[in-house]
Amino acid sequence: MVLNPAYEAIGKSFVQQYYAMFDDPAQRPNLISLYNTESSFMSFEGMQLQGALKIMEKLTSLPFQKINRIFTAIDSQPMFDGGVLINVLGRLQADEDPPHPFCQTFVLKPLGNSFFCQHDMFRLGIHDTA
Amino acid sequence: MVLNPAYEAIGKSFVQQYYAMFDDPAQRPNLISLYNTESSFMSFEGMQLQGALKIMEKLTSLPFQKINRIFTAIDSQPMFDGGVLINVLGRLQADEDPPHPFCQTFVLKPLGNSFFCQHDMFRLGIHDTA
Repeated sequence: MVLNPAYEAIGKSFVQQYYAMFDDPAQRPNLISLYNTESSFMSFEGMQLQGALKIMEKLTSLPFQKINRIFTAIDSQPMFDGGVLINVLGRLQADEDPPHPFCQTFVLKPLGNSFFCQHDMFRLGIHDTA
Repeated sequence: MVLNPAYEAIGKSFVQQYYAMFDDPAQRPNLISLYNTESSFMSFEGMQLQGALKIMEKLTSLPFQKINRIFTAIDSQPMFDGGVLINVLGRLQADEDPPHPFCQTFVLKPLGNSFFCQHDMFRLGIHDTA
């Protein structure tokens, strides 16, 4: 049971690194370095993907060229295996689409002196209005 | 490394149980049974709380009497210690307030034949408009 006291800084720095790569189509393929070949899970708008290759197939197939992103909140918590749980709430605008809220959850697992992304869940905040 | 194949059903059933208790002020104090005395973490609108007592102090101090809730998406993933990661996206209306989007993330840890809530992150989807 080793809580990493730097969880807040780790969360913020991971989020910066992740979206800097994600939001630039030229860098997006490099996201593969953040996922584990076998064991990383992603839920993308409800679609379940496992393993770095499947995840990257999805992420590199996304058509937009430009994303503007505003962060509303980045919450992090330390996990008992030394990992970090991160929740991101924000708004994004892909190309000329209207802006949408989004939330994304990451679970980082320690690996040597760094972390990889074990769990990743992404949802746009598009709600049926009742 | 024991993935629980029932993660999807566990996620959905936990979410039902959690909000049935949370949304009824008479039952809300019973949420204490879902958290660990020492090790549960909660982030509530950015406020960090640790341990069942601190978490319950916050949750039972919330003033609203009535909550209407609509779920947009419930995503679950199995974790490698047998736990389940859950992300809930929805809209809620507390008393006569205007409805707001919310997202909430849970990490359930196995305990005997059941689970407790190790991590809990709650945010209303209130965004500054740029």
